[in-house]
Amino acid sequence: MDALEAIASRRSVRSFTGEKVSMEELEKILNAARLAPSGSNIQGWRFIVITDPRILNLVRIFSPGFLGNASSAIVVCSDLEVYGREGGEVGRNYTRIADCAMAVENMLLAAHALGLGGCVIRSFSRVALKEILEIPEYVEPELIVTLGHPATQPKVPPKLRVEDVAYLNKYGVRWFSGGA
Amino acid sequence: MDALEAIASRRSVRSFTGEKVSMEELEKILNAARLAPSGSNIQGWRFIVITDPRILNLVRIFSPGFLGNASSAIVVCSDLEVYGREGGEVGRNYTRIADCAMAVENMLLAAHALGLGGCVIRSFSRVALKEILEIPEYVEPELIVTLGHPATQPKVPPKLRVEDVAYLNKYGVRWFSGGA
Repeated sequence: MDALEAIASRRSVRSFTGEKVSMEELEKILNAARLAPSGSNIQGWRFIVITDPRILNLVRIFSPGFLGNASSAIVVCSDLEVYGREGGEVGRNYTRIADCAMAVENMLLAAHALGLGGCVIRSFSRVALKEILEIPEYVEPELIVTLGHPATQPKVPPKLRVEDVAYLNKYGVRWFSGGA
Repeated sequence: MDALEAIASRRSVRSFTGEKVSMEELEKILNAARLAPSGSNIQGWRFIVITDPRILNLVRIFSPGFLGNASSAIVVCSDLEVYGREGGEVGRNYTRIADCAMAVENMLLAAHALGLGGCVIRSFSRVALKEILEIPEYVEPELIVTLGHPATQPKVPPKLRVEDVAYLNKYGVRWFSGGA
């Protein structure tokens, strides 16, 4: 699938067939994640792939944002020790979030290009997640990506246009898409 | 360009030819940005495209991370009022960063697919940027993406392997890439 087409046609998928995501597909999605840019190339992200239905169900119970019957999920975490040591205060408070989010977008695009779908979740109990997945003190769960085979093609949610969110050379001077 | 190939071959580019990025290309990159996922579909991101060489130079002076001779840059901002109103404390402190980072990754991939290159920058004076670009109080500059025509193809920086950063069903249980 073409890259620009993948970006344009990716949707947040919350309704899945029961079919499992294969280990080969998960490997490709993880590979896309690790290839995202990372502030100062710190790469302090850590990925916990959940394929065990029992563990996935526990995660779901403690994640109000986890809708639908995804067959897998990847919990994206950051290693706070690594970010603190190599990125200082900005690393620990900012870069870790931005890095994990860029990796997440790569994962969503890779999943979509593979014919899969998923959704980003931030609404979860971090305390419960740390317990369930035995995540150590110095590692922070940041975002969950659910993954599965889309049951339906979701509609496009209301999206602001380029000219609603873009400016030229100064805040407030509207970007004119017709001029491009 | 294929999506998985774009993800794999994208590099952070800091060395550019003098050729300008066209308005059509910038429009496509902005379009990729606005199509990123956004927490609760808030879309509180705002994009300031800089094409004016005088303004770009001012931004460069106040951004230690701004290396190289990019002909354009896009300053990605978040509207704190929108994030506070629609996303509460999490929106204001977390979602705004994750949203802008996902939009940034889309921009980098779109640029790469168009034969352009760029780099994410977090090292800048936010006070200076707000002054130079007349950014209002309630809008926060988050990240800068430089853009231009790559002069050279950068080498791959040292990257951790999938099995260095991924676990299966529990933190600490290493993902085995050979098993996929």
